[in-house]
Amino acid sequence: MAKRGNVSLSVIRRLPRYYRFLGELLQKNVTRISSRELAQLMQLTASQIRQDLNCFGGFGQQGYGYNVAALHTEIGKIMGLDKQTPMILIGAGNLGRTIAKHMNFEKSGFKLIGIFDNNPEIIGTGVRQLTVSDAAHLRDFCLRNHPVAAILCIPRENTRQVVEELLSLGIRNFWNFSHYDLSLDFENVVVENVHLGDSLMTFCYQVNEASAEEESDEEKSPIF
Amino acid sequence: MAKRGNVSLSVIRRLPRYYRFLGELLQKNVTRISSRELAQLMQLTASQIRQDLNCFGGFGQQGYGYNVAALHTEIGKIMGLDKQTPMILIGAGNLGRTIAKHMNFEKSGFKLIGIFDNNPEIIGTGVRQLTVSDAAHLRDFCLRNHPVAAILCIPRENTRQVVEELLSLGIRNFWNFSHYDLSLDFENVVVENVHLGDSLMTFCYQVNEASAEEESDEEKSPIF
Repeated sequence: MAKRGNVSLSVIRRLPRYYRFLGELLQKNVTRISSRELAQLMQLTASQIRQDLNCFGGFGQQGYGYNVAALHTEIGKIMGLDKQTPMILIGAGNLGRTIAKHMNFEKSGFKLIGIFDNNPEIIGTGVRQLTVSDAAHLRDFCLRNHPVAAILCIPRENTRQVVEELLSLGIRNFWNFSHYDLSLDFENVVVENVHLGDSLMTFCYQVNEASAEEESDEEKSPIF
Repeated sequence: MAKRGNVSLSVIRRLPRYYRFLGELLQKNVTRISSRELAQLMQLTASQIRQDLNCFGGFGQQGYGYNVAALHTEIGKIMGLDKQTPMILIGAGNLGRTIAKHMNFEKSGFKLIGIFDNNPEIIGTGVRQLTVSDAAHLRDFCLRNHPVAAILCIPRENTRQVVEELLSLGIRNFWNFSHYDLSLDFENVVVENVHLGDSLMTFCYQVNEASAEEESDEEKSPIF
């Protein structure tokens, strides 16, 4: 059985990537792989891979390597992808609708069971097999259906109040797309942030840094 | 003038967050702030903040703290937000259209100058002030307009080929939403990944881990 607890977030963040690569190997009918080969493929070191997987009990066999299907299944289980944790989406604007349509919740351990908005033009419209509900009915819905997690696709200024309401309804897991650092104001919450704006600005830095390096390389070799 | 080069990615990733918090302070008409106060607000340590900002030359004044407006502007400049790097979007499906509509490119150092797709039903439709162009015209467009960066909102299986074409057109900066680790196959590219699927799976792990801890806490205190 897998060891758990006290696994660092950086290891956890690598699990989906292992899962993706192993899934691709499966599709190519690769049945087993050594840590060295997997390392080469993923541009990690073999010792890093062994270390990562040892956090959960280790799965390799000396001289045999990893059984691809077994490891894929096991990493899926470690992440809880075999469950169907009930989840709701708050905010069905452009971003919210796209997230609802785009993500494969069922294969990622979740089941999207409700979508809420407070805009009369959006309430009643369909997204996936769901109809957007009036946010005024959120409390009733939660009391009946007990969602465990919420996706937040709402403007920054509304987020705090919505999180307070969700916490009062027993939801404390948030996949957060709003630009609000909610873990600063709330304790004992699980937050996975997708700050698209931060990502774009980080990208901007890297683009400019790369082009500055290029220019300085050119300056350094004026004789060519 | 700001120091540059060899700044670690973890420092760079914190810059947008500094920028956001300083922007909020500005909106509240806060004109100066000590590293201690800023640290408290952002839940960092004062020494971490001083260390981060020293990577770029440092901006504080002993006994005065930071000038909020000046630091906000300076961090924006460090990230290159004052520029308008020309950028194109490849893939105008749900996700691509939403990214195009949702992001504030102009305030993030970019200018979106073209959107491309190969689906006849999507070509010719409008997104923002742009019309989606036929991907067949990509080469002509790039030769005329010289975009420097590309957003990739295309399926995994098409990404490699598209990146090869873009590289041949001089584009080597990618804001990548496709589930393809393109830095494994291409050198000398700048890639900022937004792997939404990985984020959802990481979230799944954390949700399950938190609920397992709760259950085990309950087991540990059976007398209550």
